[in-house]
Amino acid sequence: MVASGEVGSSFQQKAYRAVAPHAWPRGISPFNKLVLVLIVLASLLAVLETEEGLLAAAPRLFVTLDLAFGLIFSAEFALRLWAAGADARWAGLIGRIRWLMRPIAIIDLIAILPSFFALAGTDAFLLRLVRLARILRLAQLGQFSDAVALLWDAVRSRRYELAVSFLAAGAVLLASAIMLYLVEGAVQPEAYGSIPRALWWSVVTLTTVGYGDVYPVTVAGRMLGGLTAIAGIGLIAMPTGILAAAFSDAFQKRRARHEGASERD
Amino acid sequence: MVASGEVGSSFQQKAYRAVAPHAWPRGISPFNKLVLVLIVLASLLAVLETEEGLLAAAPRLFVTLDLAFGLIFSAEFALRLWAAGADARWAGLIGRIRWLMRPIAIIDLIAILPSFFALAGTDAFLLRLVRLARILRLAQLGQFSDAVALLWDAVRSRRYELAVSFLAAGAVLLASAIMLYLVEGAVQPEAYGSIPRALWWSVVTLTTVGYGDVYPVTVAGRMLGGLTAIAGIGLIAMPTGILAAAFSDAFQKRRARHEGASERD
Amino acid sequence: MVASGEVGSSFQQKAYRAVAPHAWPRGISPFNKLVLVLIVLASLLAVLETEEGLLAAAPRLFVTLDLAFGLIFSAEFALRLWAAGADARWAGLIGRIRWLMRPIAIIDLIAILPSFFALAGTDAFLLRLVRLARILRLAQLGQFSDAVALLWDAVRSRRYELAVSFLAAGAVLLASAIMLYLVEGAVQPEAYGSIPRALWWSVVTLTTVGYGDVYPVTVAGRMLGGLTAIAGIGLIAMPTGILAAAFSDAFQKRRARHEGASERD
Amino acid sequence: MVASGEVGSSFQQKAYRAVAPHAWPRGISPFNKLVLVLIVLASLLAVLETEEGLLAAAPRLFVTLDLAFGLIFSAEFALRLWAAGADARWAGLIGRIRWLMRPIAIIDLIAILPSFFALAGTDAFLLRLVRLARILRLAQLGQFSDAVALLWDAVRSRRYELAVSFLAAGAVLLASAIMLYLVEGAVQPEAYGSIPRALWWSVVTLTTVGYGDVYPVTVAGRMLGGLTAIAGIGLIAMPTGILAAAFSDAFQKRRARHEGASERD
Repeated sequence: MVASGEVGSSFQQKAYRAVAPHAWPRGISPFNKLVLVLIVLASLLAVLETEEGLLAAAPRLFVTLDLAFGLIFSAEFALRLWAAGADARWAGLIGRIRWLMRPIAIIDLIAILPSFFALAGTDAFLLRLVRLARILRLAQLGQFSDAVALLWDAVRSRRYELAVSFLAAGAVLLASAIMLYLVEGAVQPEAYGSIPRALWWSVVTLTTVGYGDVYPVTVAGRMLGGLTAIAGIGLIAMPTGILAAAFSDAFQKRRARHEGASERD
Repeated sequence: MVASGEVGSSFQQKAYRAVAPHAWPRGISPFNKLVLVLIVLASLLAVLETEEGLLAAAPRLFVTLDLAFGLIFSAEFALRLWAAGADARWAGLIGRIRWLMRPIAIIDLIAILPSFFALAGTDAFLLRLVRLARILRLAQLGQFSDAVALLWDAVRSRRYELAVSFLAAGAVLLASAIMLYLVEGAVQPEAYGSIPRALWWSVVTLTTVGYGDVYPVTVAGRMLGGLTAIAGIGLIAMPTGILAAAFSDAFQKRRARHEGASERD
Repeated sequence: MVASGEVGSSFQQKAYRAVAPHAWPRGISPFNKLVLVLIVLASLLAVLETEEGLLAAAPRLFVTLDLAFGLIFSAEFALRLWAAGADARWAGLIGRIRWLMRPIAIIDLIAILPSFFALAGTDAFLLRLVRLARILRLAQLGQFSDAVALLWDAVRSRRYELAVSFLAAGAVLLASAIMLYLVEGAVQPEAYGSIPRALWWSVVTLTTVGYGDVYPVTVAGRMLGGLTAIAGIGLIAMPTGILAAAFSDAFQKRRARHEGASERD
Repeated sequence: MVASGEVGSSFQQKAYRAVAPHAWPRGISPFNKLVLVLIVLASLLAVLETEEGLLAAAPRLFVTLDLAFGLIFSAEFALRLWAAGADARWAGLIGRIRWLMRPIAIIDLIAILPSFFALAGTDAFLLRLVRLARILRLAQLGQFSDAVALLWDAVRSRRYELAVSFLAAGAVLLASAIMLYLVEGAVQPEAYGSIPRALWWSVVTLTTVGYGDVYPVTVAGRMLGGLTAIAGIGLIAMPTGILAAAFSDAFQKRRARHEGASERD
């Protein structure tokens, strides 16, 4: 009996190492590699299904694949839930509930449900929204990378400076919209007749997208528009400069830590 | 009597700590947090009011809110003016006049006035301009951030290099406008018939906005246009590189200062 | 006999130094400089030939030049193959086969063949593809630069961070396409009626290209479109920041190595 | 006689200090400040003259101002030529000829001549070209800045890396043009019917300008076009990263030199 219990526990622990994102000794476990591929394929399916031409060409195929992915991810979710018991934090019923309350588990659950209930939806917009929830599964990918943590820390460490540069961008955005509203509003009321309208032009110009649906035509408007476009370069340069400095810092710190670690050896 | 005087003075000092931007011991005082929210709301109101559709939908609402914000910011301005007396620099009538002469106080005053006098305006353009002065209040936000100072110092420390990179951009701008004027002027006189006209195309291309209202159509014009677009990348790269180096410097200096400070402790 | 053999061998070694990319003592050998110029000219010819107007103006000239370049590069290839015997690695028949199996030799061979066999092609698309293979020859240029290796190492050393920043870009791309599909799909079914269609708009906006063939027209669509454009700046800033930090590291390492080397002298 | 000679010589030396770019003890001499303002004004005049509407509005004014600037800059040139004698390098007739042979003096001379001879021109294009030569005078501005030297050195020190990143950009440019020519050439022959034509689209997309005059419409074309646009971000990131690293280096070196200098004091 004890031996049997031990075997069961050891089987659960092996499963836990294979399914939990960071429990595998090095890199990503073969099981999770397969899951990641399936997540990408299922998301691709959800994206392609929105194209009615494709859907009409093979309606049975899409329904069948939807159901198949739904079953696979349900089984995978159940397996993860069961295997989590091998970790002291998630052991027992209370542990399982704590495990289910983590944001990543809730997202996973929301992504599984539409495979079974979506067809009962009535409102077209809501139905679309629910069905696309399956794409949320892609958020799981983020757990598997150390580089994510490094980049995220670098961005976080400069959040005030980045916020200031975005506020500065917002100020230039508003100022250019106000100026164009004042000088072009009378000539092109459809495009610049109010500040909210002029803001569309401002954001398209400052980000250097430049669709060309609206652009100034008066001399004064073009001079201010040119200044806005030049200011847009500064607005791109500031966050880029801040991030470059932050990444440079982060890489140096990591290297210093590695060197410190190898000296101690 | 003395006690009463002391109480009055202590009340003024408490008010000063609450309303003056940097007098609060740590971060932003609750009073100023409320004021900042009100400033953002009032600016949003001023922006939305320019959209005639919205204005027509609820004219009474906008007039009422305008007046309400006018009264609130007047009271807040009076409170700041009175509380400033707790600081030796602004005490007494002379001190109050000095306080009123600071640019930030003048901007604040200009932003308050339109709430009461704007309706008397006659010329549509001037009326718009005066009413939008209320948005200047947003300039107050800049006082509350240390990150602003850090970024501003970094930009200032490289002002000559940035000026040179903008002069280089100006030279390329002028050169490309002259070249397109020479090779495309005869084919598209409306767009390239003079250098000032060609400059509009140049600035839209060099900043990589590219509206598409004007673009070269001859082979020579397209070759020069392509070179201009490629030069535009260099022009974005230079200020970005300068700012990245400047921010990197600024962050390192601040860290060195922090480490120096903690070693001394 | 031995002397003759020695002479032959010494001639082969001289040829090897002249034709092998890194065998010349310093920089690029005069022979390879000539070859590089010829490669650029032959590629230019292959590009210009696709313009039917030019081809019709001088059909004999293009055919003659094609054949001439084909003969020159065949002779050059044979010379390289023979001279490779001066290197112990490529000596003998087995060595020559090893030499021929290198990717750069295979590319070279693929680039030579169309000069002689292309005219026998039948399908227009395949014919074009085969003829353009000659441009692959440009890949040879990459062998001659140390700066390529430096830049490539810097990019490689940050491949995980760059991959993460591209995955983040992919996530924002997908999220913005989904949002626009949901809010603009009903209004502009041609442009946003499915996620694959909306992705075209997303990629054109996030990269700040902004052709202007599709753009949101509803208020909600424009707000989300503006956010997408602003997110696009962040997506440009991240890889730029990572590369700036990587290049800064690479340059410092190289300098440190140079200084270390000169101290030892 | 000697006294008179000495007076003359001292007057010439005073003039030399005032007119030669770097002879003034600190910054820019008042004389050169005036000259710089006049250069900017004369260039502005040359630019505005190309706009026929302005020229027609006040033809006498432009002719008069042209002649006035021509006389002023002729006198200034003569003064510089005479004052150069105060420097041993330019003393005597041989020295003066050497002074006249410097590129900056030749440019200056080319910029002065059109004020007197331009009206005799016949061909419209040549006439325009000659008259615009006056704008070359702006090149003089570059002599007055130390920041120019710093930036120029930083760019020069990384010229191989920048060249490689531009060659990489060229390779992507060519590859994307070839791909679009192959997949879109049949559908849009006007825009993609040959590689030279497709290159126009490539350069407009890779630099993220995106005029919108040509863009892919097929599914394969849009996928390749999207990849090209994403590659464009990498192409902007590489030179930016290289320049950021180069500027960071340059600023650190200058600071190290300053600190070394102040320690020695």
